[in-house]
Amino acid sequence: MSTSRIEAFSDGVIAVIITVMVLELKVPRDTTLTSLLSLAPQFLAYLFSFLVVAIMWVNHHHLLHVARRADAPLLWSNNNLLFWMSLVPFVTAYLGNNYRDPRAVGLYGATLFLCSLAFTFLRSAILCHHRDEPSVFAYHRRVQRKNLFSGALYAAAIPLGFIDVRISYVIFVCVALSYFWPERKLAESEERGS
Amino acid sequence: MSTSRIEAFSDGVIAVIITVMVLELKVPRDTTLTSLLSLAPQFLAYLFSFLVVAIMWVNHHHLLHVARRADAPLLWSNNNLLFWMSLVPFVTAYLGNNYRDPRAVGLYGATLFLCSLAFTFLRSAILCHHRDEPSVFAYHRRVQRKNLFSGALYAAAIPLGFIDVRISYVIFVCVALSYFWPERKLAESEERGS
Amino acid sequence: MSTSRIEAFSDGVIAVIITVMVLELKVPRDTTLTSLLSLAPQFLAYLFSFLVVAIMWVNHHHLLHVARRADAPLLWSNNNLLFWMSLVPFVTAYLGNNYRDPRAVGLYGATLFLCSLAFTFLRSAILCHHRDEPSVFAYHRRVQRKNLFSGALYAAAIPLGFIDVRISYVIFVCVALSYFWPERKLAESEERGS
Amino acid sequence: MSTSRIEAFSDGVIAVIITVMVLELKVPRDTTLTSLLSLAPQFLAYLFSFLVVAIMWVNHHHLLHVARRADAPLLWSNNNLLFWMSLVPFVTAYLGNNYRDPRAVGLYGATLFLCSLAFTFLRSAILCHHRDEPSVFAYHRRVQRKNLFSGALYAAAIPLGFIDVRISYVIFVCVALSYFWPERKLAESEERGS
Repeated sequence: MSTSRIEAFSDGVIAVIITVMVLELKVPRDTTLTSLLSLAPQFLAYLFSFLVVAIMWVNHHHLLHVARRADAPLLWSNNNLLFWMSLVPFVTAYLGNNYRDPRAVGLYGATLFLCSLAFTFLRSAILCHHRDEPSVFAYHRRVQRKNLFSGALYAAAIPLGFIDVRISYVIFVCVALSYFWPERKLAESEERGS
Repeated sequence: MSTSRIEAFSDGVIAVIITVMVLELKVPRDTTLTSLLSLAPQFLAYLFSFLVVAIMWVNHHHLLHVARRADAPLLWSNNNLLFWMSLVPFVTAYLGNNYRDPRAVGLYGATLFLCSLAFTFLRSAILCHHRDEPSVFAYHRRVQRKNLFSGALYAAAIPLGFIDVRISYVIFVCVALSYFWPERKLAESEERGS
Repeated sequence: MSTSRIEAFSDGVIAVIITVMVLELKVPRDTTLTSLLSLAPQFLAYLFSFLVVAIMWVNHHHLLHVARRADAPLLWSNNNLLFWMSLVPFVTAYLGNNYRDPRAVGLYGATLFLCSLAFTFLRSAILCHHRDEPSVFAYHRRVQRKNLFSGALYAAAIPLGFIDVRISYVIFVCVALSYFWPERKLAESEERGS
Repeated sequence: MSTSRIEAFSDGVIAVIITVMVLELKVPRDTTLTSLLSLAPQFLAYLFSFLVVAIMWVNHHHLLHVARRADAPLLWSNNNLLFWMSLVPFVTAYLGNNYRDPRAVGLYGATLFLCSLAFTFLRSAILCHHRDEPSVFAYHRRVQRKNLFSGALYAAAIPLGFIDVRISYVIFVCVALSYFWPERKLAESEERGS
């Protein structure tokens, strides 16, 4: 059994997830600027979730690239990840409607935390294929640690939102942006190390 | 004609089926814990249907892998399967709204039963390609029997739900979990047999 | 430019078309048998449209298989076909709600007629690739004629529905079923001819 | 990392975008000709957006075809493009409901402008792969200029709609049709040049 059909199926599911989110942007009845501006929270929630799902897709792409075989642990940790990702459109719409409510922010953070956890399981399942290659193993263990740290930050954002939801938002945005920045640093430190 | 485009099309349809189900989780108006908890039946129905469709996808993956050619019986027994699978989002939403009603449980069971039956037809269509290979034929006949047994259990869950819907739920969960367990036993018994 | 990405894109679009149709089956509020039975017209319209789109997908599969290059006429006659096919979910929901109304039946027939016409254009675009192969050319011209005949029947079903909608339904079902039957006859006559 | 999975993911997203638009065509309650004709603006907006997204898909197809590697700039300029394209179903529904309102027309124009801009970024990211090939580089720079001109026209359509929305519509249609015409001229001039 090859990993290419898992990739194709995951691509399909993620493509639908990322696109049905826009269906939650309900078209306003009238065209006053006020009713359009009242969509801003939903739009920003959509924009951020699009970014988060796109990052997950890129990570998933990189991760499955090193998978050697489509065994049961890989298959089911992948399905587990897709399940938590499929909840993103729901929590995005919920957050967009109640962006000041710590419960909505907490539910959004909890979903991202569970996606992050599911990524950790998927990476572990794939790491098993590389026990005999120290360099690949070491690299992925480093990414794994970074992943766990992101997950811990998402988890921390849940209770912190009850103090002030803006703390949670800052955490969400920082974790997402961190994806773009330290990847290069990791690559550099890897190059220096080798 | 190759089987790869059938796989690609089926992947697309199943990816959409599994994802549009989450659209049936209607975002609650307010953020009270009560209104969120009232979504629990819909969420559990979604979780279970996600699992069932994912199992079907994995089975479909394994099954089409051994298909040798995309002939008319394969093509149309595959379309037949996709049709019954496409009803899962509808019966899931129906079950989520009426999880105590034996009629909703029965309709859900009937859909799973018809999916199971459609799998039997698809497997028969593919078995025709392997009449000359006793080992492959014997293996798939054994899986076929297990499949028919699952189908019979789903069918039994329909009337039993009218006694107590919890009996049906126990059957649904057991059939789904049975997928994870005896597959290994079958493999072992196969190894012992060969 | 290869035809494989056109196939992949068409597969994606058709997979979404065939699956979003089920979203038009609105989950009834209560679980009385009456409210479930009142869904019968929508369900039958869905069942028939699923069959029609599946037939179109199989035809599309066969047709693109003989395409030699993805030139502009092929690309745009394919997009044209996908456009008319994308209207099927809309007219299916419209027919399901108003199955006794000749206008709804006529709109459904008109959409199928336009899909059939779009298929004719697509086949013409692909036939241009085979001007130098008399056998392929002759086969496709024969299928083309059959296609035009189906289109003419769909067109005839529009005014005939205003006499009695059941005439239109009989035509729709016969054209769909004709796909399963004379294909073999064509193949046989082809074999006899060669 | 290969570009084929980016193509597959983009195909999936664009296939869903182009198909969910039809879900915004709400099925009318009654079957009077009046209520059907009142759908005309929504239908025309759908028809035009289908054409625009199909043109974008074809352009995307041509563009990714010359990409050499899936580096970060390509990956993220592609995700950026998909984001703006994913807003097309929303602005199409908004335009269909308020086709005489310059704000709805302006929002539609702004989305097309941003898609056009995102195409420019994507093309720049891919042009970096061809710095050493003057002919490919020169061809794409020419297409790039045409692209920027289309973008400028879309941008101009936003304020011009506040004078008369018909000016904006004429611009939209001309830019879309220009895609079909000068491409050949460009090819010819290229042939003459080489």
